[in-house]
Amino acid sequence: MAKQEQTQEIAQLKDIIAHAKEYGFVYPSSEIYDGLQAVYDYGAYGVELKNNLKRLWWETMTRLNDNVVGIDSSIFMHPTTWKASGHVDSFNDPMIDNKDSKKRYRADVLIEEKAARLEKEGKLEEAQQLLAAMGRLLEAEDLAGVRDLIINEEINCPISGTSNWTEVRQFNLMFSTQVGSVAEDSSTIYLRPETAQGIFVNFLNVQKTARMKVPFGIAQIGKAFRNEIVARQFIFRMREFEQMEMQFFVRPGSEMEWYQQWAEARVKWHKALGIPESKIRTHDHEKLAHYANAAMDIEYDFPFGFKEVEGIHSRTDFDLKQHQEFSKKKQQYFDPEVNQNYIPYVIETSIGADRLFLMTLCNAFVEEEKDGKSRTYLKFHPAIAPVKAAILPLTKKDGLPEKAKEIVDALKYDFNIIYEEAASIGKRYTRQDLIGTPFCIAVDHQTLEDNTVTIRHRDTTEQERVAISELHGKLGEACSFRRVFERI
Amino acid sequence: MAKQEQTQEIAQLKDIIAHAKEYGFVYPSSEIYDGLQAVYDYGAYGVELKNNLKRLWWETMTRLNDNVVGIDSSIFMHPTTWKASGHVDSFNDPMIDNKDSKKRYRADVLIEEKAARLEKEGKLEEAQQLLAAMGRLLEAEDLAGVRDLIINEEINCPISGTSNWTEVRQFNLMFSTQVGSVAEDSSTIYLRPETAQGIFVNFLNVQKTARMKVPFGIAQIGKAFRNEIVARQFIFRMREFEQMEMQFFVRPGSEMEWYQQWAEARVKWHKALGIPESKIRTHDHEKLAHYANAAMDIEYDFPFGFKEVEGIHSRTDFDLKQHQEFSKKKQQYFDPEVNQNYIPYVIETSIGADRLFLMTLCNAFVEEEKDGKSRTYLKFHPAIAPVKAAILPLTKKDGLPEKAKEIVDALKYDFNIIYEEAASIGKRYTRQDLIGTPFCIAVDHQTLEDNTVTIRHRDTTEQERVAISELHGKLGEACSFRRVFERI
Repeated sequence: MAKQEQTQEIAQLKDIIAHAKEYGFVYPSSEIYDGLQAVYDYGAYGVELKNNLKRLWWETMTRLNDNVVGIDSSIFMHPTTWKASGHVDSFNDPMIDNKDSKKRYRADVLIEEKAARLEKEGKLEEAQQLLAAMGRLLEAEDLAGVRDLIINEEINCPISGTSNWTEVRQFNLMFSTQVGSVAEDSSTIYLRPETAQGIFVNFLNVQKTARMKVPFGIAQIGKAFRNEIVARQFIFRMREFEQMEMQFFVRPGSEMEWYQQWAEARVKWHKALGIPESKIRTHDHEKLAHYANAAMDIEYDFPFGFKEVEGIHSRTDFDLKQHQEFSKKKQQYFDPEVNQNYIPYVIETSIGADRLFLMTLCNAFVEEEKDGKSRTYLKFHPAIAPVKAAILPLTKKDGLPEKAKEIVDALKYDFNIIYEEAASIGKRYTRQDLIGTPFCIAVDHQTLEDNTVTIRHRDTTEQERVAISELHGKLGEACSFRRVFERI
Repeated sequence: MAKQEQTQEIAQLKDIIAHAKEYGFVYPSSEIYDGLQAVYDYGAYGVELKNNLKRLWWETMTRLNDNVVGIDSSIFMHPTTWKASGHVDSFNDPMIDNKDSKKRYRADVLIEEKAARLEKEGKLEEAQQLLAAMGRLLEAEDLAGVRDLIINEEINCPISGTSNWTEVRQFNLMFSTQVGSVAEDSSTIYLRPETAQGIFVNFLNVQKTARMKVPFGIAQIGKAFRNEIVARQFIFRMREFEQMEMQFFVRPGSEMEWYQQWAEARVKWHKALGIPESKIRTHDHEKLAHYANAAMDIEYDFPFGFKEVEGIHSRTDFDLKQHQEFSKKKQQYFDPEVNQNYIPYVIETSIGADRLFLMTLCNAFVEEEKDGKSRTYLKFHPAIAPVKAAILPLTKKDGLPEKAKEIVDALKYDFNIIYEEAASIGKRYTRQDLIGTPFCIAVDHQTLEDNTVTIRHRDTTEQERVAISELHGKLGEACSFRRVFERI
């Protein structure tokens, strides 16, 4: 039963991936060269959806909160940044190779999968003991012990079926490159594995130049890169991905209050975008990263199960302290209210733009049976839909295209509009359903007489007759970010 | 005289760089670690300005042209892409080192500088002969000949003053990195040196899924990377930079017509943003790249002279043809109007987002003497100004802050607004001038009585009294992209 359910779920993800490719949302990168593993490109509708999501997050952060401002720091950073942050020394995954299949695995993932199998067999205690044992070994950096555990637990390679394993080795996930020319002035730099450090190193620059007072936040959207060995599940885990992170600097001691407040605000945001209560949950971390004193994930019920979309982390003063130590430059803030200098504590909200995109796509994907007919459509919130309206002349003659284009010209400055005149009106409605356009506006012979058009609504397929003069206002009302903001 | 002028110009660039740092527009990257050469970060106001410019370009391309759609392709691409495009073999700069100073130079730049000196001395013919000689040698890839030319022309190192030169070597400008884990499955990939190839490899994907008909265009905004040896002039030439490129696919034979049309449209766009006629010019390329049959630069008169902001290139069918050859996948379009299959020709418009930012900043930077007072302000077009309005209660008491915050709440969903209550009103006006806020809205005691406020205009410093109820409409009218679009 469990197996069957899983198969169904995977089938649904496959449908979504196929739909995303066929209708211009997401393509494998460099597809004509047979792709590049775990890297994807966004197509004509995908980029509009992604840009809308990014802008909605950005405006939520920087406009609705008068104490949050943005920055855009570079992907290349001084390499000492990553020494200070701990990434050079410990941003590793423990890897193990099977000598027969020549396949490489994350050692911890192999063990976790075994624990999951034990759980399914009802051996809950054994599963917990296994995970605890692994935790202790990783904590102690006992890689030989991890290998012994894999062998003792009789974990075999899923491909070869053997336990002919190599040593376990640590593998750093940062991509590196050489900057400068070949000679003495070249040096190794990294592609940032997270955007957060670009905020930390600019903490004082932003605080001073934007004249911010603690508590305040700095938001950023940008690419990050991780050399994931086990990259999978479509755009959920990619080697090149986009983060939307906000670091909120607070007075030491007040961090738990802010942690709760941001967690609530972020969950509310997802719900305002149309994610139902039943599909979203929070999950507190039991095992905390070295820099955190509290952490939770906001998880969405993807076709492959509840997985993290966003993380809320109480990062203490770890990062700023490290940068102070490595740069020898004070990272302190003078708080006039308490007349004290201190290194602020930090609450981080960190969301993957690509995961948000995938959640939005999964949540919008509807396959419906109604009156004996099946229909597939993407029920995006109009504020984030890639195309807001399609203007469709009923026929290609009698001046209908000209009239329709007048409407396009009146709307196109403010909304992303499609004009389409080929094929039957029904086929054109279907096409717009498949890319998630909330409104189809049909121009017919009556339009020439009384300047009214038919609006066909995507989710209900219901139609209404409205005056052309009302269109701009109606679209503005339905598609405005304000519609989302007011629900937060 | 020429020397003195040049010094003044450099002084002005220095002022702009200092202003950009002090008022939150641009900081050196990783500044606490003493920066990373030729990499910069955008601060709180810089990121808003840059985002506005990017969005304005995007909407100009994809909304005002119903036959242009966008994509967002990844930075990582299949390495064969760069073999096909010619970047692996020929994206090189000829470098030469001085053995005494240990400094590295671009050999062609050394020669060009010598030619410029000859020109200033009135030796026009000699200068032209020198450039022609260099052109022939580079064309023939005769690097020993380039070195001989440098030595024969007695070009010395500006630092050591000697002509103790190494050989000239080709240096590829692409950054490379290893993807995958260390073993047999790892491979070298590049950070894309241009975004254009991400469009070319997706040509058919986009054409099919967005159902485009030639002529049509694909627009993209994204980061690109070049390991520039001579990186300089602030954000003008960086190692990490952002491009905004549009590839317009046309029927072979119609390319020169489209080339002219796009060149005109792009020049118009810059003027619509407020660049005066005298500060912008076009410059036809005499020497064409291997893929082009026509090319021009749109140049702006920067403090360091007229330099390229945007390029318009007629790229023929070079790129698609190469990808067809290397991928063994047909890159053809069936044109129903002429009943033919062909590889389209391509017109490219390519603008650097960072250069556009720098042009906008230079163009906006005003140091004014008026009535014996000096004033510095940034006269950004309101549509792209980072902050649209500052709401300023005259005093911190009598309910003025509360009233001011009501206004903030009514405007913040739709405009980027600042609230500021500290310091005298004059100082607060000055502060807003320095970040280029077009409107300061002062809330005073009269406001409490009649719900009117004072709007102070940045460029004229003139003030007018308006009703609070009019503010939203006035800001919307002044700051809308439509104001720019209507001038294109």
